[in-house]
Amino acid sequence: MTVSHDQLANAIRALAMDAVEAANSGHPGMPMGMADVATVLFTEYLKFDSAEPGWADRDRFVLSAGHGSMLIYALLHLTGYARPTIEDIRNFRQLGSPCAGHPENFELPGVECTTGPLGQGFAMAVGMAIAERHLNATFGDDLVDHRTWVIAGDGCLQEGINHEAVGLAGHLGLGRLIVFWDDNRITIDGGTELSTSEDIGARYQASGWHFVACDGHNPADIRRAIDEALADPRPSLIGCRTIIGKGAPNKQGTSKTHGSPLGAEEVAAARQTLGWTDEPFVVPEPIRDAWLQAGKRGEAVRSEWTARLSGHSQRDEFERRMRGGLPGGDEKRNAYLESLLANPQKVATRKASEMALEAMTVVIPELVGGSADLTGSNNTKTAATKPLTRDDYSGRYLYYGIREFGMAAAMNGMALHGGVIPYGGTFLVFADYMRNAIRLSALQRVRVIYVLTHDSIGLGEDGPTHQPVEHLTSLRLIPNLHVYRPCDAVETAECWSLAVRRKDGPTVLALSRQNLPQLRTSGRMEAAKGGYRLQQAEKPRRVVLIASGSEVEVAVSVRERLEAEGVGADVVSMPSWELFMAQPAEYRAELLPAVALKVSIEAGTTLGWERFTGPDGLNFGIDGFGASAPAADLYKHFGLAPDSIAPKVLERLKQG
Amino acid sequence: MTVSHDQLANAIRALAMDAVEAANSGHPGMPMGMADVATVLFTEYLKFDSAEPGWADRDRFVLSAGHGSMLIYALLHLTGYARPTIEDIRNFRQLGSPCAGHPENFELPGVECTTGPLGQGFAMAVGMAIAERHLNATFGDDLVDHRTWVIAGDGCLQEGINHEAVGLAGHLGLGRLIVFWDDNRITIDGGTELSTSEDIGARYQASGWHFVACDGHNPADIRRAIDEALADPRPSLIGCRTIIGKGAPNKQGTSKTHGSPLGAEEVAAARQTLGWTDEPFVVPEPIRDAWLQAGKRGEAVRSEWTARLSGHSQRDEFERRMRGGLPGGDEKRNAYLESLLANPQKVATRKASEMALEAMTVVIPELVGGSADLTGSNNTKTAATKPLTRDDYSGRYLYYGIREFGMAAAMNGMALHGGVIPYGGTFLVFADYMRNAIRLSALQRVRVIYVLTHDSIGLGEDGPTHQPVEHLTSLRLIPNLHVYRPCDAVETAECWSLAVRRKDGPTVLALSRQNLPQLRTSGRMEAAKGGYRLQQAEKPRRVVLIASGSEVEVAVSVRERLEAEGVGADVVSMPSWELFMAQPAEYRAELLPAVALKVSIEAGTTLGWERFTGPDGLNFGIDGFGASAPAADLYKHFGLAPDSIAPKVLERLKQG
Repeated sequence: MTVSHDQLANAIRALAMDAVEAANSGHPGMPMGMADVATVLFTEYLKFDSAEPGWADRDRFVLSAGHGSMLIYALLHLTGYARPTIEDIRNFRQLGSPCAGHPENFELPGVECTTGPLGQGFAMAVGMAIAERHLNATFGDDLVDHRTWVIAGDGCLQEGINHEAVGLAGHLGLGRLIVFWDDNRITIDGGTELSTSEDIGARYQASGWHFVACDGHNPADIRRAIDEALADPRPSLIGCRTIIGKGAPNKQGTSKTHGSPLGAEEVAAARQTLGWTDEPFVVPEPIRDAWLQAGKRGEAVRSEWTARLSGHSQRDEFERRMRGGLPGGDEKRNAYLESLLANPQKVATRKASEMALEAMTVVIPELVGGSADLTGSNNTKTAATKPLTRDDYSGRYLYYGIREFGMAAAMNGMALHGGVIPYGGTFLVFADYMRNAIRLSALQRVRVIYVLTHDSIGLGEDGPTHQPVEHLTSLRLIPNLHVYRPCDAVETAECWSLAVRRKDGPTVLALSRQNLPQLRTSGRMEAAKGGYRLQQAEKPRRVVLIASGSEVEVAVSVRERLEAEGVGADVVSMPSWELFMAQPAEYRAELLPAVALKVSIEAGTTLGWERFTGPDGLNFGIDGFGASAPAADLYKHFGLAPDSIAPKVLERLKQG
Repeated sequence: MTVSHDQLANAIRALAMDAVEAANSGHPGMPMGMADVATVLFTEYLKFDSAEPGWADRDRFVLSAGHGSMLIYALLHLTGYARPTIEDIRNFRQLGSPCAGHPENFELPGVECTTGPLGQGFAMAVGMAIAERHLNATFGDDLVDHRTWVIAGDGCLQEGINHEAVGLAGHLGLGRLIVFWDDNRITIDGGTELSTSEDIGARYQASGWHFVACDGHNPADIRRAIDEALADPRPSLIGCRTIIGKGAPNKQGTSKTHGSPLGAEEVAAARQTLGWTDEPFVVPEPIRDAWLQAGKRGEAVRSEWTARLSGHSQRDEFERRMRGGLPGGDEKRNAYLESLLANPQKVATRKASEMALEAMTVVIPELVGGSADLTGSNNTKTAATKPLTRDDYSGRYLYYGIREFGMAAAMNGMALHGGVIPYGGTFLVFADYMRNAIRLSALQRVRVIYVLTHDSIGLGEDGPTHQPVEHLTSLRLIPNLHVYRPCDAVETAECWSLAVRRKDGPTVLALSRQNLPQLRTSGRMEAAKGGYRLQQAEKPRRVVLIASGSEVEVAVSVRERLEAEGVGADVVSMPSWELFMAQPAEYRAELLPAVALKVSIEAGTTLGWERFTGPDGLNFGIDGFGASAPAADLYKHFGLAPDSIAPKVLERLKQG
């Protein structure tokens, strides 16, 4: 028996509606609407081998419209990936099933990234396509020669981040990126005419993309469009005119199929419409076999690739990079640290970050940097990182443009692709613009390094719109994100080292605009403990001053004043709350003893510091917005100068 | 003496370079580059009267490229606004000067909004233009008939939010919005060709905009373009080809003029080039007079308008709305609250929010709602709020599309315009997408109400991408933002009442997807205290359970279990940290006494709760990401079910 296109596609439709029905929750409309496109892609075009989901040169497929997760679960299952099993799919959206409500990269090989937050899958795909071209330029066609495919919906295209992603991809000429737009003219609120009047194809063309439309239910027309996209050197958007929920005779074409189960009656009607007579979750043998064959299409190509790799002169380096292991070169980085200890530098920590990067980018070729148009302010570019452009993908520095969110998502995509370690800069306050992408770095457990400079009122005159106040702690709240705020050049180098070594999650480096004295002239990798005693009380200890970043200098001055009054005080530098909390309780108790008055100093909101100072401690910070003035004036104005803090500490001690 | 266009424009250039030089900090390039365009606009087109900055029917002018703040300070000063004085300008970027690094609406009348975070000024202008058309539809041409003008740079256009703002404005056909794009082909990193290849005009046209280019240094050509824009029914983008830093002979046209002082030598050279012989901060009398005349151009028109207003049948209502005062109708809202107390409702708080809105939107006609394509999920639409469309601006409900950031910025613009109280919905997790606009609501002190539903793992199956964990506390960190998480229908109604009455800042309502029992059957406006005793211990009190939102129900169940074991426990409902912290210390101490074991329960990160429980308290929450499963399973899984919490509290009591 020959299996028809419709039968293949209907297997997706049946699994999608059955799983959503069983879960009594989910989104059947998109998988049913895009089943035909996905079938053509997976059975004829996508380069993959279901037996080897980790094959480095596979095509990447991103379901940017992540709510349609049953589409990818059905595809992975049908093409023979080890997971999800049919049992996993039966347990769609239940605790412990890898078939989560939205696709999660850490649950299933074959899910290249975690999607659901609209627009970001698409933008991550841009990062994957950048990584592919960069590695191709580095390792050649023999090892790296694949495409990135995306399915995106109207939501992905309406979101602001889409403009950034489209602009970046068009500018870099990422011709191996092909996006299917599920043009079903339906959003949650109703028809797209409720909220948009855009000529989407024209917009894409204006940004250097190729656009072609097709009938998303006609396999031949889908092929025609894909072939045209493949032949075009520009990135492509394929507008697939589809009917949402296609196959559900009474609800298709309406927002009713978008985000809720079809209901038993409509599922029964859909079975009839589709000619699908089997029980829920049962795929007839011939159809199953045809899908499994499709899952093996890439076997030979993969074997050839493996053969090429095994004899390749760059094999070790390629494998190291894709594995995420670091190269040698520790000596060089250590030498830099030792030189700092020997010759203290008074520099801004953003400058110290550049110095650390200069040392690291020479020995770690997979570091690929960039900035959202603040290169000179973020100090992110080094001598070793030449620009990555459409004419030279071997470069290691991206001029991301004024596109913070797009930059962060692209970095997620690059890290997910593997083979590169992306870092990128903007001002700390504009972490707000890319916050959900930072969250997705953490959720996806990827090594992305955020270089966030101008980290407090210390930036001075730019004023409250540019002065982060709540940002440090608001980032500390994000699970699995490491936030560092180093106090000097030594800590900055240590934090960079920790960030690069961390394989399973992102790091934020919060860095000063203003110069800071080097307070550390001894010790090795103290920052790894998150918090440590930088200075010890000389007089009997009654106070522990805890500070981060630029306020450690303030704490040191406060300590001098206290000691002069006969009050012993430790200074604890705490570059990372997360790492400090991970230390043994005894270490933490010894550092922050119950008997001492604990005082936090940080030029940001005080909320959260109670965790370390207790309710009887003192918290110096800024609980309102900043102001526009030179930095020194602001520190005085906001009560963060040593002369203002020391008397308050003494006063509290007197109160007992 | 006749004053030439060049002389007028050079007055701006001179003040900009002098002020930046004196501050030794700032951005001279943009004001010098756009001086010609601004001169034509302010002396010939903009409808305003410098003697009456608050005139309701004035044109709104938004400097979206806020770093060029000296442009607007120069314009306001030259056209005769009371502030900034020349002394204010001399103190540009110094503590206490209203001439902050970036323009701030709360510092100077004439600064319509706070800009600097790129892209948002433009997007706020869209909101102003919406408010104008809505009020025009409500009050007629006699009272409301003005335009919104914007100056934006490449940064504003590259940012993702620009796509959302452009899409919304094009869709709504906001023909009275005219944007000048400072097309200087320079960004901070260098030429725009480093990061973009976009045909900007084509993109705008694709979204329903009119586009026209002009020579931004030729007044006649600028006029031609403006006249064309005025004649076109679509919103307009005027591409003004300019030279950044024009007038500085050696640095103009380069990024060197963007963000730093020109330096004494180049300032001297510029004076020569411009033929500007006066001392710094001195504007020759004839030029000063000509500018002052321009500032009075609108006097007659304003007088006529005032006369029309004084005899207008809708005068009182118009003035009330523009003043931001609420209408009567308290009885109706109170009646709703009383009906709840009499007939408790078990509903999700998002549904309770809809019920409160139904009652309020009938009596408060200035409430203008909307949602970022989640109307049915956010429950934001009521019977009284018909759609606001390009064909009917009198509507009160906006289908914002999948544009969270654009929505939030538009709401800021609407609130800044005055006459409307905007509220808008999305999921709480997607507060991330619009976070900096929420921050700008708070900084700008505007009454914008964010309806953020699906506020915890209680949303269930959608999983970690959609489950807010860190969001509640990360929003609480934003200064001047009130965050409410009501526990039932009564608290929800109270919080809505507080939000609407708050004139000087924004409010977030965090609302549940899942049904919650009505726990309050007595009391009046308890939520106004931020936290209050919902249930009192029967047995001797040893424990105080503090919870918010959906976890108050959990706390009530835990309390039952504790009391059954002979342990007295209070339940404190804490819908708002901000309001609770504003209560007298005695009230707080009485509610959260030092002697009791204090236990917080909230389905979010625990960081911050130490402020209320102290270090010896217990904090139940979620410090990692959520998971995909039915809500009840998740509460058990994450240890937030009463059966899991009660034993741990008892255990802690045993430890003493």
